[in-house]
Amino acid sequence: MRNIIIGQSGGPTPVINASLAGVYSEAKKLGFDKVYGMINGIEGFLDENIIDLDDYLNSPEKLELLKRTPSSYLQTCRFKLGGIADNAEKYEKVFKIMEKFNIETLVYIGGNDSMDTVESLSDYAALKKKKQKFLGIPKTIDNDLPIIDHCPGYGSAAKYIATTLREIIRDNTAYGTTNPTVAIVEIMGRHAGWLTSAAALARDESCEGVDAIFLPELPLDIDKFVEKVKVLVKRKASVVIAVSEGLITTEGKFVVELDKDLKKDSFGHKQLGGCAETLSNIIKEKLGVKVRPIILSTLQRAGAHLASQTDLEEAENCGKKCAELAYNGDTGKMVIMERVSNNPYKIKYSSFDDIHEIANIEKTVPIEWIDQENNYVKQELIDYIKPLIQGEVKQIYKDGLPQHLIR
Amino acid sequence: MRNIIIGQSGGPTPVINASLAGVYSEAKKLGFDKVYGMINGIEGFLDENIIDLDDYLNSPEKLELLKRTPSSYLQTCRFKLGGIADNAEKYEKVFKIMEKFNIETLVYIGGNDSMDTVESLSDYAALKKKKQKFLGIPKTIDNDLPIIDHCPGYGSAAKYIATTLREIIRDNTAYGTTNPTVAIVEIMGRHAGWLTSAAALARDESCEGVDAIFLPELPLDIDKFVEKVKVLVKRKASVVIAVSEGLITTEGKFVVELDKDLKKDSFGHKQLGGCAETLSNIIKEKLGVKVRPIILSTLQRAGAHLASQTDLEEAENCGKKCAELAYNGDTGKMVIMERVSNNPYKIKYSSFDDIHEIANIEKTVPIEWIDQENNYVKQELIDYIKPLIQGEVKQIYKDGLPQHLIR
Repeated sequence: MRNIIIGQSGGPTPVINASLAGVYSEAKKLGFDKVYGMINGIEGFLDENIIDLDDYLNSPEKLELLKRTPSSYLQTCRFKLGGIADNAEKYEKVFKIMEKFNIETLVYIGGNDSMDTVESLSDYAALKKKKQKFLGIPKTIDNDLPIIDHCPGYGSAAKYIATTLREIIRDNTAYGTTNPTVAIVEIMGRHAGWLTSAAALARDESCEGVDAIFLPELPLDIDKFVEKVKVLVKRKASVVIAVSEGLITTEGKFVVELDKDLKKDSFGHKQLGGCAETLSNIIKEKLGVKVRPIILSTLQRAGAHLASQTDLEEAENCGKKCAELAYNGDTGKMVIMERVSNNPYKIKYSSFDDIHEIANIEKTVPIEWIDQENNYVKQELIDYIKPLIQGEVKQIYKDGLPQHLIR
Repeated sequence: MRNIIIGQSGGPTPVINASLAGVYSEAKKLGFDKVYGMINGIEGFLDENIIDLDDYLNSPEKLELLKRTPSSYLQTCRFKLGGIADNAEKYEKVFKIMEKFNIETLVYIGGNDSMDTVESLSDYAALKKKKQKFLGIPKTIDNDLPIIDHCPGYGSAAKYIATTLREIIRDNTAYGTTNPTVAIVEIMGRHAGWLTSAAALARDESCEGVDAIFLPELPLDIDKFVEKVKVLVKRKASVVIAVSEGLITTEGKFVVELDKDLKKDSFGHKQLGGCAETLSNIIKEKLGVKVRPIILSTLQRAGAHLASQTDLEEAENCGKKCAELAYNGDTGKMVIMERVSNNPYKIKYSSFDDIHEIANIEKTVPIEWIDQENNYVKQELIDYIKPLIQGEVKQIYKDGLPQHLIR
């Protein structure tokens, strides 16, 4: 009897469930007996919150719906097991539950923190000479994992951002030439500018594109920012700017902190507003033009109706690859993708066994891919992202709305 | 020689250009010679900012792209001619320019204010016995025009709102049962709750739906609001609430004003935040749960990639109907749609000649369609909206992104 269990962890993506579908279907195909799912990641696993996925994914239609369902079907957690030395009891419990359910391999789909969990558990198994195995599948819209060419989830979020920006740009141009209108669009990515960079894809012969892009990899000089917008509003009536939520000023402060001291809610509490709102206030004050902050918020990580077909297939393939690794008895590895070539775009799936290298490093945008003036990105970065947003996932519509799979 | 000119006015919608395409193609078909477009509505017209649409829409492909392009292709304005008595010079100028370009009929696509312009111009023509004619085509995502069953633009915005809420609900459910998470989603509609009502469509067997809906038609009792959320977070870990941007408290204040006194920007200026943000602050303070305000902002009026096929066809048909009216020499009329039956859904296109009745009345959601507890909507309202979001517009994709037509 060979059983396997799958968990999801960290923030949602539009295609994290395609990886779940990939592991499930390939594991069944390879002959695994039970394919379990843990509810709420490792936190729920410790409470034995475990389901038999056969009870939920028992038709091809359900699997197709699952792949198109954003966010984590098995729900998620932000739970760390902690160091082995101080948390032996918790570690032992994981192995005990795996024994109880006769589980050979635990597959965890997640970002940096989740890979840390995979790493710790496989280290513990090695240390205590236990037979249980642990594998990781990457996912994060932030695209900030090292080693892997790009993360499943990123392509779909990038496609959402570029599509939405095209529409924001059209909307912003409506009001002609008399009153310049500035839209400042805040995009996720606290430390890495991958998502904000996707704004550059909006530009082609059918769209003017965004006028400036500010990434968190380089400090934001507020005076230069104001000057840049001033030049833009003199030249054109519609100005659309993409900013990362995590922008830091040349003084080393988060942009949002500039507002902190004076901005209080109705109960007198200090509040951290958004980066776009703070920058909008500054532009309004300094230039007296109409400014609208737009925050893409969770829409960009849940926008499955705009998922990239390439991204969805890759997420599913990463799941399948992981089932293969499990079948071969591998442990302590994460599935990775290498870009064999960019034109034609070709990806090779393999695995990486030094999860230590992956778990706690954030991969940011290379400085040489950012424009010298630090308000746009270079062609190399656009070329890197472009293949990842190709293809449209055919949604399953009913009564005018896309359908999802819920438990 | 029979010439016609088309203008667009007021806020953008995802399908306002389908009406433009409808007038253009039908006018050409009926044998009009020149079909002109005015840039920036009547404001641009007064500056003779006029283009020959043949120069821009000279292929079937361009017309198809135009129909899928959100916002106003001809750009817009928020300009009122003002009363006839005080603004005779402006009125005379309109007729002079029409004479100069040999224009028989001026077609204006817009909302209440735009119909006011059509009304004033046709009144002036009647008064001064001028031969020029004026026709209106309704558009507004707000759906707040009287007489007409519903406005072109509303169905697509409703589809965007319901789709996005499904995804927000999935995202919000990811974090399990330990920490209740509340999302408060702010939807456009300052006085009318039509758009916010569309949140109710999210619910079906593939989605739990939103937990409460608050429309601006009825006052918001803040204490009852807090109590409602309190009950919800006790019962479920994920709570998603839809609120109209224009909510007014039982004391007759805009909800956003509750924050006004204490919330200042970094320059010490008072700021009006959003309704969702204010309500989030109140919930955070009173219940101590995690709350995230999400503002759909201009995305809901520009989301052409989620346009409703029904809405797009109706917008185009309204344009065609208007060309027909122009051909027949009608003036002082607005195209309207009557719902002949709801099941099967059937629309009849006609015209309404008492624009006075349309121009300055805002149609709000009937109170009897709102739940007695005032935190959800009734089935009648859902049945009214449902046919309007049916069908998906096939986008024209290139390199992974929907294409638009720009001038």
